[in-house]
Amino acid sequence: MAVAGLPAVVARNDLPERVTICEVGPRDGLQNESAIVPVGVKLEFLDRLVAAGHRVVEATSFVHPKWVPQLADAEELLSALDRHPGVRYPVLVPNAKGLSRALAAGVDEIAIFGSATETFAQRNLNRSVAESIEMFAPVVATARDRGLRVRAYLSMCFGDPWEGPVPLRQVADAAVALMSLGCTELSLGDTIGVATPGQVRALLHAVSDAGVGLEQVAVHFHDTYGQALANTLAALESGISIVDASAGGLGGCPYAESATGNLATEDLVWQLDGLGIETGVDLGTLVETSVWMARQLGRPSPSRVVQALGG
Amino acid sequence: MAVAGLPAVVARNDLPERVTICEVGPRDGLQNESAIVPVGVKLEFLDRLVAAGHRVVEATSFVHPKWVPQLADAEELLSALDRHPGVRYPVLVPNAKGLSRALAAGVDEIAIFGSATETFAQRNLNRSVAESIEMFAPVVATARDRGLRVRAYLSMCFGDPWEGPVPLRQVADAAVALMSLGCTELSLGDTIGVATPGQVRALLHAVSDAGVGLEQVAVHFHDTYGQALANTLAALESGISIVDASAGGLGGCPYAESATGNLATEDLVWQLDGLGIETGVDLGTLVETSVWMARQLGRPSPSRVVQALGG
Repeated sequence: MAVAGLPAVVARNDLPERVTICEVGPRDGLQNESAIVPVGVKLEFLDRLVAAGHRVVEATSFVHPKWVPQLADAEELLSALDRHPGVRYPVLVPNAKGLSRALAAGVDEIAIFGSATETFAQRNLNRSVAESIEMFAPVVATARDRGLRVRAYLSMCFGDPWEGPVPLRQVADAAVALMSLGCTELSLGDTIGVATPGQVRALLHAVSDAGVGLEQVAVHFHDTYGQALANTLAALESGISIVDASAGGLGGCPYAESATGNLATEDLVWQLDGLGIETGVDLGTLVETSVWMARQLGRPSPSRVVQALGG
Repeated sequence: MAVAGLPAVVARNDLPERVTICEVGPRDGLQNESAIVPVGVKLEFLDRLVAAGHRVVEATSFVHPKWVPQLADAEELLSALDRHPGVRYPVLVPNAKGLSRALAAGVDEIAIFGSATETFAQRNLNRSVAESIEMFAPVVATARDRGLRVRAYLSMCFGDPWEGPVPLRQVADAAVALMSLGCTELSLGDTIGVATPGQVRALLHAVSDAGVGLEQVAVHFHDTYGQALANTLAALESGISIVDASAGGLGGCPYAESATGNLATEDLVWQLDGLGIETGVDLGTLVETSVWMARQLGRPSPSRVVQALGG
């Protein structure tokens, strides 16, 4: 598919030359869709994303199927997956049990998920922030001993629906605690999508000041209030070069009452292409993939770029 | 309506303390909606926008009703409108005939619309760029003689569907030509929504270098590819403090095949509130207004903020 954008403008000095996109559609996206997608469709989705140029694709989750029935086929998916050389396929792991399943499936990268707030830690992990770090410690240690990379998500980094604004220091402390376990990458999440660019800059400054190198840090924005792409720009200007995004904006339908959608990878790639920042991802192939996936799910993609180009 | 945002972060030095929003929903928005709205609804819409804190509201258009039947009631609307002191109500005027109608209706600000490209000038104005400047010259002169302010729109400032990318110099020349007529404000439009932040910075630099003071310049972005808010951020960092936006994203439905929506005012205000930039606009009142207007139009607002808060 030909895409008629403008010629790129040479990037400013404070922007990275290259951005690594962590494509979270197959996991974070599909687990938040109401439809349950057959494993064959998931496999084709993964293959298409890699064909579009993605080199980091979050494949699935070993959270108990009781909680995430959408991804109950994790073992089946991974045993059938044709893993392309040079492509990372992180897999979400909630605890030691999940790690055992992941190791048995032969993954070479896991992702764990922590919380910056006590309320969300209790609700999502059934323990305090400190207790969750304790729980993750042996998981990360074992994974690293086996030579796996470990991606750590940190949720509710800006606002929390129960606690409101989250103090910078609290987020920075949780970030340091996770990285001290030996994680190789940290993804800072604006889980409810409330942040604006000044807050993004302030948090990245605080995290960096606390000793976490920004070359290891990803940002994970939600488009609930339409801020994801402006926040991404602020993050790139602050030293970030890893961005999470979800093909077609999968994961939370904006037509629903409470929109919770992930940043759409296509909208991100349009911006990065225009800024002259390399991603390796071909926008046209990605749009075709999201048009195809929207057909599988039986609803239009919320991505503006997919809506504009996918007709 | 209570709105739970984050506390604002102190604005960076390169951001303005205050932004003037030019609310274009009643004109640019409604003229691009398929539904024709009764004059009573338009009057209530204008009143609600002012009650929300807007101080610049584009009220209607004197383009011939054959071309814009949605706004055929311009005279009726203006004669019934309760104009609030301190509020500017620019009215679109295409030519000398339109100016006569506007003067008869007692407006104190008009807006004219030029094109940065020859193809769009021919299609929209039925003449070349140079001929359109000639046509506007006596319109602006007469308006200024009568003490009216004149806002000049410049369309297709980044990309054009027929000509592709638009050279910076070409846009800067058209900008200078319009301002040389005596216009008081210039609104640079990304009519097809293709721009990204680097291109925004480059154009504003070129326009400023050509002698147009950025304190007179507004930006007018479309969210066709989801870039409007990131582009706005880049514009604010480049010295812009006037931003056009449309309440609820009126004007081009994103659910249609080719999305052409204006930047939603609510999404803009969320960002500016978060950045600690004053606008005078109350987000909750504005969201209520757009929820009400969506009901009049019989379709949901494409604004992410309205979708998230308006349920």
